[in-house]
Amino acid sequence: MSNIYTQGLDKVAANNMPLSPINFLNRTADVYPNKTAIIHGSEKISYQKYRENVRCLASALIQRGVKPGNTVSIIAANIPAFLDAHYGVPLTGAVLNSINIRLDAENIAFILDHGECDVLLTDTAFSKVVKKALALCSRSPLVIDIDDVMSEGGERLGQIEYQELLKEGAPNFNGNMIDDEWQALALNYTSGTTGNPKGVVYSHRGAFLNAVGNNMIWPLDGEAVYLWTLPMFHCNGWCFPWTVVAMGGTQVCLRHVEASAILHSIIDNNVTHFCGAPIVLNMLLNADADLLAKLPGKIKAMTAGAPPPAAVIKGMEALNVEITQGYGLTEVYGPCVVSEWKSDWNNLNEDERAALKARQGVRYPTQEDVDVLDPQTMLPVPADAETIGEIMFRGNTTMKGYLKNETATEDAFKNGWFHSGDLAVKHPDGYIEIRDRSKDIIISGGENISSVEIEGVLYKHPAVMEAAVVAKSDEKWGETPCAFVTLKPGKEATESEIIAFCRENMATFKAPKTIVFSELPKTSTGKIQKFILRQKVKNLTE
Amino acid sequence: MSNIYTQGLDKVAANNMPLSPINFLNRTADVYPNKTAIIHGSEKISYQKYRENVRCLASALIQRGVKPGNTVSIIAANIPAFLDAHYGVPLTGAVLNSINIRLDAENIAFILDHGECDVLLTDTAFSKVVKKALALCSRSPLVIDIDDVMSEGGERLGQIEYQELLKEGAPNFNGNMIDDEWQALALNYTSGTTGNPKGVVYSHRGAFLNAVGNNMIWPLDGEAVYLWTLPMFHCNGWCFPWTVVAMGGTQVCLRHVEASAILHSIIDNNVTHFCGAPIVLNMLLNADADLLAKLPGKIKAMTAGAPPPAAVIKGMEALNVEITQGYGLTEVYGPCVVSEWKSDWNNLNEDERAALKARQGVRYPTQEDVDVLDPQTMLPVPADAETIGEIMFRGNTTMKGYLKNETATEDAFKNGWFHSGDLAVKHPDGYIEIRDRSKDIIISGGENISSVEIEGVLYKHPAVMEAAVVAKSDEKWGETPCAFVTLKPGKEATESEIIAFCRENMATFKAPKTIVFSELPKTSTGKIQKFILRQKVKNLTE
Repeated sequence: MSNIYTQGLDKVAANNMPLSPINFLNRTADVYPNKTAIIHGSEKISYQKYRENVRCLASALIQRGVKPGNTVSIIAANIPAFLDAHYGVPLTGAVLNSINIRLDAENIAFILDHGECDVLLTDTAFSKVVKKALALCSRSPLVIDIDDVMSEGGERLGQIEYQELLKEGAPNFNGNMIDDEWQALALNYTSGTTGNPKGVVYSHRGAFLNAVGNNMIWPLDGEAVYLWTLPMFHCNGWCFPWTVVAMGGTQVCLRHVEASAILHSIIDNNVTHFCGAPIVLNMLLNADADLLAKLPGKIKAMTAGAPPPAAVIKGMEALNVEITQGYGLTEVYGPCVVSEWKSDWNNLNEDERAALKARQGVRYPTQEDVDVLDPQTMLPVPADAETIGEIMFRGNTTMKGYLKNETATEDAFKNGWFHSGDLAVKHPDGYIEIRDRSKDIIISGGENISSVEIEGVLYKHPAVMEAAVVAKSDEKWGETPCAFVTLKPGKEATESEIIAFCRENMATFKAPKTIVFSELPKTSTGKIQKFILRQKVKNLTE
Repeated sequence: MSNIYTQGLDKVAANNMPLSPINFLNRTADVYPNKTAIIHGSEKISYQKYRENVRCLASALIQRGVKPGNTVSIIAANIPAFLDAHYGVPLTGAVLNSINIRLDAENIAFILDHGECDVLLTDTAFSKVVKKALALCSRSPLVIDIDDVMSEGGERLGQIEYQELLKEGAPNFNGNMIDDEWQALALNYTSGTTGNPKGVVYSHRGAFLNAVGNNMIWPLDGEAVYLWTLPMFHCNGWCFPWTVVAMGGTQVCLRHVEASAILHSIIDNNVTHFCGAPIVLNMLLNADADLLAKLPGKIKAMTAGAPPPAAVIKGMEALNVEITQGYGLTEVYGPCVVSEWKSDWNNLNEDERAALKARQGVRYPTQEDVDVLDPQTMLPVPADAETIGEIMFRGNTTMKGYLKNETATEDAFKNGWFHSGDLAVKHPDGYIEIRDRSKDIIISGGENISSVEIEGVLYKHPAVMEAAVVAKSDEKWGETPCAFVTLKPGKEATESEIIAFCRENMATFKAPKTIVFSELPKTSTGKIQKFILRQKVKNLTE
């Protein structure tokens, strides 16, 4: 197609640059050189120093041979070096591969091999498992030990320590190896709720857009103090290492995600924003009441990773923590769906508000489309809050694909949409609500029962701390719901009492037939590992 | 370059879409169908209805033969049809050419010819000049009359009225002719401060990014009520027709930008945000005190287009209107530089605050770079607040180029930067401050004198309403400053008194040697037309 607008109006150096979230640091360091970018214990790092560290990291890696398309893996707690890596590694054109710190040596070795790791940055706190993984894998990466100032020891495994490496670099290095925004920025392996992990690849373009999208749906500004309760290895901390810097906020590191450390940090640093799986919120709700009483007002928390039970939302709001629920997956850069709040809803009662807030919601303005489709016909389900379909995404904040796995990539992208595997309904107002992962639906006597719905009821029981429901095979019904429950400290309840409570609070046929009192196995990101519970149920029945 | 990240990770339908600001309307209409998108007098248009109008416009235009790459021109006040056009025209793949309503027939005819107008949407209020322009030009576009409900009459010139055209369209039309984000979206002719207008071409990508950038530096949210004091034909209203929709706010139309209408609309609609040239702010400052007393609190105003005198900033703040200064040009999508405020500065005194706020500032996070360079060496000037250089831009919110004018495009983009023609200094903190347009610098006895600096002093004089300074040729000094001044109603001052005031408040050699009391000629966007003043000065001396 040729017209007057297709001639003499080409992309040139002055009007076209690759989109990348890593450019945000230059802007903020230029405007706010002396502002605190990072807090780590008693240490405060200014934006100018942060950029210098990033530039030292990039130039030192390049001097040691790192090239565009290489893989730089990192296994670390939420510490400054990890924030450095979010800018310094992509600045070299290499890909940042953040590894889940709770994986076992076999899994880590699999990732180092499959991702073809060239450099490994490793927090000495995890030296035991990393040492094993390095012995198991077939790669021989350059290993850099991060001996963090707040670490509890651990062994050095590598050729050089992180601070020593930085000294090799140039604080005024001003290179940038990004010449195409579709270039890979990050490699994140899906967590082990099912089979072999797959390597999800992010582009610079997609990360830029999700970083900007975070701020559009959950505004931060230069006054924001963001606490790292969410693991940075999980979807690159939902792209917040880039969002917070873009807006000139301050990031507060945290080595251990446990209630007392979180609350002390919030109080000491006047934290305004944090993110986390519902399990993190639940942990806070059950924390020391004296500490909770000292929380500053106006804290905003974003939760995603699993649908938060209404009781958790209500509990947090009682603490004056404003909850926003997001929804997403590793494949869509973390959350790109938000339970966007409408001011009309402020007048509803607490239960109604919690029910609305528990819905996953609507797409970010930076994602083209999210919908609930019938995977057979690829048609949207009716917006009746009843018909279950599969959540699918399309747009610029959808992954490039799975590394070295074209079959899985094609499968995930078939018919022009990314298939999430999550089952949901669409409400008449267009908000979507998760019913379950495909495999989490319980089919009992021909009726579909949502395990999430049962869990919602269980969380309302005054003695229940945590709950997870899976299918148990049954001769008569095919499947029946089996609930795994942890009780609150000092509380008591019996199986029959909890079943009775469920029957009173939901359709009788949906109530669990079995209650198992036990700890719940979780991934590092707080997702309950239902495949382990399913195995337990299988053992129960055999 | 081939590596593991360049294989099997291609762009496909699920993970790649052209960036375009026009997609924001779909998202907001999905989430907030019943919310008020547009207020026009007593009329309120919901987001659902707005989208229907847009879809009707696009499908009706397509049915009448509009194709990608066509030019659809519009000449209209700030009315709903103009907001429709910002989405409906680009949806067809055609380019929206917004024409300045204050141009004369010859200029409009030039634009219709040069831009190869295929369709003209014309507000009947401007029928007199448009009729002449159509007679003068060599094009025969489809002419659509907009007989706005609040218009004051005027003649119908075309084949069909706008509301009738919408009836030809399909409210559920769901096409989108954008397949490349570099595709042209808008064509905006530079205003006539110099010679023949040039046609600045915007891309969908650039407009998306500046729309998002506006919100990053000047946050709006779903509660925002944005008043259209800024002409939409000026840089597409600085991209705010897209920003406000992206954030789910409400836009308030306004046919006449005059003080009483603005203040009544702010009070009646609880306006929270508006934009305008400093001249608009100055108009408000001198408005009816009873109306000013009724202003609601917490209004945010963004000003750009000319450096606002410190006195105007102080005056607005006394009215509880928070001023943010932006800076840009048609070629960079309106403002992409902002005088970003630092909380440390809140404790400074009023004069110090106004002086800081009067600086143009720093780049948007969505523009790659802005700097003050020596145009000879292309090196940045020292950040000493003294050395004058030329403001230059590069990045994604820089125009595609000038339509059918490759020489001007290459010239503007030489050495990899867009050359703004504006002269500025850089402060030690990196904030830039305009000294003048290249041709506005006065060279007197070998010293460069900034006309902006003199104007800043003149505005502090209690009797001065408006002031503009140009060079007057002088046998002894080469040039001397000549000030054109308008006095406030009821105030008096003499030439010698004003000159004495200037000599007391700035370096003596910079003070104007001549004061002319007269009205100031302005463009429709409130920019003072110094070329007319220069002509007057020439006549004075001849």
